[in-house]
Amino acid sequence: MTERIPVVENILNANDRIALDNQKRLTDAGVFCINLMASPGAGKTSLIERMLPVLSERMSIAVIDGDVASSIDADRAAAAGATAVQINTGGQCHLDATQLRHALDELELGTFDLLIVENVGNLICPASFKIGAHTSVLIASVPEGDDKPYKYPGMYHGVDALVINKTDLLPYIDFDMPYFRRGVELLNQELVSFPLSCKTGEGLDAWIRWVEERTAQAQKA
Amino acid sequence: MTERIPVVENILNANDRIALDNQKRLTDAGVFCINLMASPGAGKTSLIERMLPVLSERMSIAVIDGDVASSIDADRAAAAGATAVQINTGGQCHLDATQLRHALDELELGTFDLLIVENVGNLICPASFKIGAHTSVLIASVPEGDDKPYKYPGMYHGVDALVINKTDLLPYIDFDMPYFRRGVELLNQELVSFPLSCKTGEGLDAWIRWVEERTAQAQKA
Repeated sequence: MTERIPVVENILNANDRIALDNQKRLTDAGVFCINLMASPGAGKTSLIERMLPVLSERMSIAVIDGDVASSIDADRAAAAGATAVQINTGGQCHLDATQLRHALDELELGTFDLLIVENVGNLICPASFKIGAHTSVLIASVPEGDDKPYKYPGMYHGVDALVINKTDLLPYIDFDMPYFRRGVELLNQELVSFPLSCKTGEGLDAWIRWVEERTAQAQKA
Repeated sequence: MTERIPVVENILNANDRIALDNQKRLTDAGVFCINLMASPGAGKTSLIERMLPVLSERMSIAVIDGDVASSIDADRAAAAGATAVQINTGGQCHLDATQLRHALDELELGTFDLLIVENVGNLICPASFKIGAHTSVLIASVPEGDDKPYKYPGMYHGVDALVINKTDLLPYIDFDMPYFRRGVELLNQELVSFPLSCKTGEGLDAWIRWVEERTAQAQKA
C-alpha cells in the first residue's frame, strides 16, 4: 500500500495560515482591510484616489500597492493623502500572505482605521491566494467587455463586492449589461455591485458609503 | 562543500525544450505561428475576428484559444471562419508548451499557413513561458492606461510587435501617447507598433499587411 503525500495542500495551507495571522493582527489593531483586485487598468488606483479625499476626513487610511514593477501606484496614493507602501513582486502575478505580512511591518497599524490593499493587476491568480483581508472587492471595467464573468469565474465567484467602473464609456462601447449581470449572478448571487465612473464621479457615493459602513461595523464588532 | 541543485532552471528548461519541439513541428509543416498576448478584454478575439475575413482569402488559418474557462473565444473564431481549438487551463494563468503541443495534435498542421495562438488574458506570466511560436505580439488597449509599459516591463520587453487597440476611445480617455511610447522605447527599441481600432477598422490594413508579410517570409525561408 502506498501513501500519497499532500504536498500541494500543505503549501497552500502555509499561505492560508499566514493570511489568518495577518487578519488577526489587523483585527486586533482595529483596522478593516480590503483586498482590491482587478485586471490591469480597470481603475484600482483611480478608485483609491477618488475615495481618499472623502474618507480621509472621517478615518485614517493606509494603502499597500502590489505591482510587478514600479512605484507609480503607491506614489499616486501618497499624493492623494494616504500612507502608502509599495510591494514589488519581481515577476509574481499576485500578492501572497507573506508579502502582506512584510508590508504590515512597515505600518504603525494602531494608527489606521482602513487599509486598502491594491493587488497585482490580474483576473486569475490573486483569487487563489488569501492575504488576510476582511473583504475582497473586484473592479470590472466597461471596456474589458461583458463576457469577463464567464471567462474568469474564479475571480467573480470569490469576491464580496463588485465595482463596475468606467460607466462613462458605456455610450461608446458594445457592453451588454444584462448579459454581464447574468454571468455575475450565476457565479455569485450575494454579490453587491456598484456601477460608477472614477472619471465623472457618478455612482461613487454609494460605494464610499458601503466602505464606510463596513469599516464602522468591523470596528464595532 | 555543498552543491546547489538548480531545480527551477530544470523546470523552465523542460518547458523550453517542448517549445522548441513545437516550433520545429510548425516550421516543418510550413505554418507561421503568432503568440498573441494581452490583458483581459484588450481585444485579442476582436482582432482575430477582424483579420480572418481578409486573410482567409489568401491563406488557411487556424486559431488556438487559451482561457481559464469557457469556449467563448474559440466559438467566435470558428464563427469568423477559422478552424479553432479551445484550451481550458483550469486555473493556470498562462499557456505552456505542453498545452500547445496537445492542441497541435488536434490540427492537421500541413493544411494551414498561419496559426494564431490567443494566450490567456494576463500581462504577467504569459511573457515567461515560451510555447514555440515564431513571433510574439502584445495588444495594449487605450482604456488600460498609458502607464502599462512601466508596470508590466517583462511583457513589453519580450514581444516583437505591439498592437495599440481601441484608438477610437482616445477622445474620451486621458491617455498620454508620448508617455506611453517613451515607456515602450525604454524597454524595447525594436518594437514595431500598430495603432488601430477593431471597432472602426482604422489602422487594421497596416497590421494585416505585417502578418501577411511575416507569414510569406517564414514560408519562403
